[in-house]
Amino acid sequence: MITYSLEYDWTPDEATEILMAEAYGKITEERETGVAGYYHLPEDSKLLNTEIRAYAASNPLIMDCDTIAVIGIGGSSLGTKAVDAMLRHKTPGLKRLVFLENPDPVDISQKFATIEKEKTLFIVVSKSGSTIETMSIFKAAISHFALDLDEKEKSRVIVVTDEGSVLCHFADYHGVKAYTIPDNVGGRFSVLSAVGLVPLTLAGYDTCSILQGAADMVARFFGRREKHIEKKAAFLATHWETYRMNVLFSYSTCLENFTKWYVQLLGESLGKRNRSGEPIGLTPIGQIGSIDQHSFLQLIMEGPRDKSVTFLKISDFENDLQIPDISLKHIEKTDYINAHTFNELINAECDATHQSIVEEGIPVDSITLDKIGERNIGELIVYYELLTSLMGAMLDINTYDQPGVERGKNILMKTFEKDK
Amino acid sequence: MITYSLEYDWTPDEATEILMAEAYGKITEERETGVAGYYHLPEDSKLLNTEIRAYAASNPLIMDCDTIAVIGIGGSSLGTKAVDAMLRHKTPGLKRLVFLENPDPVDISQKFATIEKEKTLFIVVSKSGSTIETMSIFKAAISHFALDLDEKEKSRVIVVTDEGSVLCHFADYHGVKAYTIPDNVGGRFSVLSAVGLVPLTLAGYDTCSILQGAADMVARFFGRREKHIEKKAAFLATHWETYRMNVLFSYSTCLENFTKWYVQLLGESLGKRNRSGEPIGLTPIGQIGSIDQHSFLQLIMEGPRDKSVTFLKISDFENDLQIPDISLKHIEKTDYINAHTFNELINAECDATHQSIVEEGIPVDSITLDKIGERNIGELIVYYELLTSLMGAMLDINTYDQPGVERGKNILMKTFEKDK
Repeated sequence: MITYSLEYDWTPDEATEILMAEAYGKITEERETGVAGYYHLPEDSKLLNTEIRAYAASNPLIMDCDTIAVIGIGGSSLGTKAVDAMLRHKTPGLKRLVFLENPDPVDISQKFATIEKEKTLFIVVSKSGSTIETMSIFKAAISHFALDLDEKEKSRVIVVTDEGSVLCHFADYHGVKAYTIPDNVGGRFSVLSAVGLVPLTLAGYDTCSILQGAADMVARFFGRREKHIEKKAAFLATHWETYRMNVLFSYSTCLENFTKWYVQLLGESLGKRNRSGEPIGLTPIGQIGSIDQHSFLQLIMEGPRDKSVTFLKISDFENDLQIPDISLKHIEKTDYINAHTFNELINAECDATHQSIVEEGIPVDSITLDKIGERNIGELIVYYELLTSLMGAMLDINTYDQPGVERGKNILMKTFEKDK
Repeated sequence: MITYSLEYDWTPDEATEILMAEAYGKITEERETGVAGYYHLPEDSKLLNTEIRAYAASNPLIMDCDTIAVIGIGGSSLGTKAVDAMLRHKTPGLKRLVFLENPDPVDISQKFATIEKEKTLFIVVSKSGSTIETMSIFKAAISHFALDLDEKEKSRVIVVTDEGSVLCHFADYHGVKAYTIPDNVGGRFSVLSAVGLVPLTLAGYDTCSILQGAADMVARFFGRREKHIEKKAAFLATHWETYRMNVLFSYSTCLENFTKWYVQLLGESLGKRNRSGEPIGLTPIGQIGSIDQHSFLQLIMEGPRDKSVTFLKISDFENDLQIPDISLKHIEKTDYINAHTFNELINAECDATHQSIVEEGIPVDSITLDKIGERNIGELIVYYELLTSLMGAMLDINTYDQPGVERGKNILMKTFEKDK
């Protein structure tokens, strides 16, 4: 169960109520017409889940693996990494996931050194099928591990890509197993498609329950039982020129990759020119509590009033590690915390920081998971996707494209082509 | 060697030249009067370095350890983590460093499980000596590992803290080895004091060379041979209301912890009320290339013109991993990169992104390390510290305090004290 709480000192006026209704109408239409496909993933991916399990069960090479190397970058890896980081500690018997993302030679060499080919499945994830980083790392893996795609080795590779992409054609040519991503599902909205489901299911996660949590949220939202999301979107969208940054302050080390997924989702979806050509957008910033109370908090408290803050908290870590009732000579003033659990300490830190920020008049909302679990994670993913779509509709932008990154790609290509 | 390049379309006017001269004067005075002590660390810590090595050499228990557990948070760990992440891959024979920072019960339990007491040295780092997270984790470690401070076990613990702090008294009482931090060196400026030097030296890093790189930068700066730092500080300080965020886009996975150190340094130093009580400050944001080209870049390119960008790049990764000259059927369009190295690819991505951002008219500067090495890292640390001090002087704030974090600490204490 997740509880959501908005603590804005703000009530939408009539114009904002209209904006909210229009945005709701627009995303309902997106869902119905298929402008964006992620709304249907929680239901549609259930069948995929069954197929993935059946494929693995019939394939001894996969069953024998203890490692899955995911070759992908951005939307092709961030969501999978986020779920893996949140759930790993409470899921027994998992295969290890290694993420080959950054074309950093040292990073790749180090990760290659931890991979034993005979025990590894390689999953290549690229929506377009021609992402330069991903294809370069894939080629390096083919060479380094002597992967022979034409023989029995070919089942050591799976690709996840758009139907009809060049990578899809490559897989067909070699008879390599391919899972496809619906055309209308963008990379940053794709974690509940084959992009996340293939590696997570094969690693051993209960992705069915993740999908169920997501499906329940979609159903409740379109049943108008989660109207707080519309209100939050309206606040952030109508105040973005004042509160230019939204800080997601997440109180657990296991949430760090989730904050990176959130940064991509909001940043890449909402940083756009609107239909009048004006540059707009909210800057998402991920922070980890309580570590960043010793870093970024000072800036939030006393710096410019240009930030809103979202607290993300786990009520029950399901871990009873205690601060022992030990009194250290001369440090007795820290004894007030003795015999409490770390679970109590980290959450009391979250609450204290929360209160001190609210007292400064900074807009705050909070998201509280009763515990880390598959359903909660599915719900949380869809919550942020819906929030993003609503904000995009309110800001009158195309939430689903990313035209600003093309120029760099073209410059890159020309750099190397002129050598040839 | 590091090269710095400012690509601002801007020339300081007369008033700004005066501001720059005054700021230089102010930090010269800080250095001479000891208002801030970090300026002297590169020279003063050289002796400390020798002492640390001698202590370790005379102590078989330390020589036998293969792991160092650093218990500390914020300024007591971020700098050490940053240096460790940058240098580990090129330093043979190191002891492992484990950072016990966040009072997250799952994270601590997992890290405790990787620690074998008989092979581990525990270093407790807290400037005040009573940081609640650090003391709680220290107590949990005492209990979990049955550390007996009164017997031969006491040399398994070292503390790093302010002279005269409660932790210092604790160490004296038990005869535990203590290294002290100068009073006038704040946590976020302390990596070149005992805070960073004790764990890094004992782990096996050549901290002498780090100090030398830092000392050379201090000498050049105060010899007026690094005036670009003053100009950058002036640009960022006089434009902070327009360019409210500075994005440090670092092109290597090994730089991620460095960006976290940078976020604390700038955020906590410059997010302040000025002498007129107005809240001011620049928001630092860390990004990793090329991963975040697939995330945050769209927002930089097409979002609001409220960001400046700093590129941090490594010319030579000293790793020749290649993209093999393999043509994948149907994916031939990625062949333009074949037979180039990953080193070339990641840096060409940096250059292409750089060019595309400059073409958008966004203010850019760049920092290029010829390679990762101890001297460069020492220089880079001091570069950012000097930049921060200059900006603080220009913004007319106290760069070295953090009054905004006290309220939360008091609320936290009251939460637990009322139970007792």
